[in-house]
Amino acid sequence: MQLVESVPNFSEGRKQEVIDKIVSALSSVQGAHVLDLSSDSDHNRSVVTLVGKPAPILEALFRGTEKASELIDLNKHKGTHPRIGSMDVIPFIPFRNVTMKDCIGLSRELGQRIASELHIPAYLYAYSATVPQRIRLPDVRKGEFEELKEEIKKKERFPDFGEPCLHPTAGAVAVGARKFLLAYNINLKTDDLKVAEKVAKAVRESSGGLIGVQAKGMELKEQGIIQVTMNLLDFESTPLYRVYELVKLEAQRYGVEVLESEIIGLPPARALIQSLAYFIKLKGPTSNITLEERLLEKLYD
Amino acid sequence: MQLVESVPNFSEGRKQEVIDKIVSALSSVQGAHVLDLSSDSDHNRSVVTLVGKPAPILEALFRGTEKASELIDLNKHKGTHPRIGSMDVIPFIPFRNVTMKDCIGLSRELGQRIASELHIPAYLYAYSATVPQRIRLPDVRKGEFEELKEEIKKKERFPDFGEPCLHPTAGAVAVGARKFLLAYNINLKTDDLKVAEKVAKAVRESSGGLIGVQAKGMELKEQGIIQVTMNLLDFESTPLYRVYELVKLEAQRYGVEVLESEIIGLPPARALIQSLAYFIKLKGPTSNITLEERLLEKLYD
Repeated sequence: MQLVESVPNFSEGRKQEVIDKIVSALSSVQGAHVLDLSSDSDHNRSVVTLVGKPAPILEALFRGTEKASELIDLNKHKGTHPRIGSMDVIPFIPFRNVTMKDCIGLSRELGQRIASELHIPAYLYAYSATVPQRIRLPDVRKGEFEELKEEIKKKERFPDFGEPCLHPTAGAVAVGARKFLLAYNINLKTDDLKVAEKVAKAVRESSGGLIGVQAKGMELKEQGIIQVTMNLLDFESTPLYRVYELVKLEAQRYGVEVLESEIIGLPPARALIQSLAYFIKLKGPTSNITLEERLLEKLYD
Repeated sequence: MQLVESVPNFSEGRKQEVIDKIVSALSSVQGAHVLDLSSDSDHNRSVVTLVGKPAPILEALFRGTEKASELIDLNKHKGTHPRIGSMDVIPFIPFRNVTMKDCIGLSRELGQRIASELHIPAYLYAYSATVPQRIRLPDVRKGEFEELKEEIKKKERFPDFGEPCLHPTAGAVAVGARKFLLAYNINLKTDDLKVAEKVAKAVRESSGGLIGVQAKGMELKEQGIIQVTMNLLDFESTPLYRVYELVKLEAQRYGVEVLESEIIGLPPARALIQSLAYFIKLKGPTSNITLEERLLEKLYD
């Protein structure tokens, strides 16, 4: 059985009736399952977790993109999160018995279809990127909807699919294949944001830490919490436990302990069991060892 | 959605064609999924993991019991594991949205049907037991098939369903409701069996340790391994991590370290995540937080 995950992001996080209609479109294909929805009103953006076999997922994403393009006018959209389109980003993630190559194929197929049927230009990013300058989303989104209107006419910003011209209201879309992303936060027993910032600097890839880790120090003022907020972009290479242990170690330099940690979103079971295995010296495999994983295998036989 | 687990044990662990036929019968109902099979030739016994909705599971277990009664003659059965019947034990375990009471009901329904249609007397054990003397399997199995032939005629050994007379070849069956059982072994860095025995004594419930833990010291001669082999009968009350930490602590008294640990069989994801939560101070729920659990929920909607 082949299962793929997709985590489409669309540019509406406030109007519930709009969110509902787009999620309905994403749920309207049998075999494509919406497992999670998270809307942020500051970002004015919603993130959906979708799982299923490749074909229904592809169709569900197309319908969701179509609906978002009908209901969201980027000319009127305001939010703190950068965006280029009403359906802004669509990643494909290998979940079970699917390769990265399969996901690259899916992203290309969807991008092409969105461009030709909805007249929304599509950029390939991450593992699907055709040039190094398009691997990272911030590069693809540079200038956002407002500036991309002009920029898209330059050769280096030509879309991978569609004409070099933004859809007047729906903008453009980034589609691509990537690995699972684990959003992982560790709260520290301190009121000093600087400690979290120093720890974040020590653990993140960009300043010399762990491969595949993005991190920054944050203060959640309302809750009075100092946090190292992280994305783990490759849990196979850099597991949760290693990140936890390194954050703990680096915080200890400043006499600060870990208060608690939290996982945002829905990780695959193996991402968690892999880390338990470290703590209890578990021998043997760390995937396909739960009832749930085995049952899914049977159901998709 | 309601999902129930059952782990039927039948008295054949050597003849592959007999095992295959019984597993086929257990797999013959749509919606009842055989997730695991483990056969032991010393025990001359096989253990199957079956998951599904209550009705198909009940039917599958009936068919498996019928097939085992056709193919296994206990008069000719030899093995090191105690047994009273060709289908020896059938536990029902609440997996998702099923209560212990539901499982007690299922065990009663199956016991009754096996007794009336197959003429195999049935004993209710564990949470289904009607008297305290039948809670524990060793009590129900006392004297095994050979002695139970006579014993069953005594009032205190009367079956819960069926006549007080063993089936001539298939014996009797124990059916009941229980919690998940986690088989968990910890190997120690020592060649001294006594250390494992002392540690086992310290951690098991019967001699003053942790609730719901059965433990004994063992030597796996061929592999040169000293092991504390355990059953965790109630992981909600006594999680894996607590058992691991206590074994580690008790072994340290003798200057012995933990080499590795292993989980036998298929635990539910939450049993593992609950223990990871301890090590990384995870806040929030520990069940229904993986893709697999959420997807199952959708598939059984």
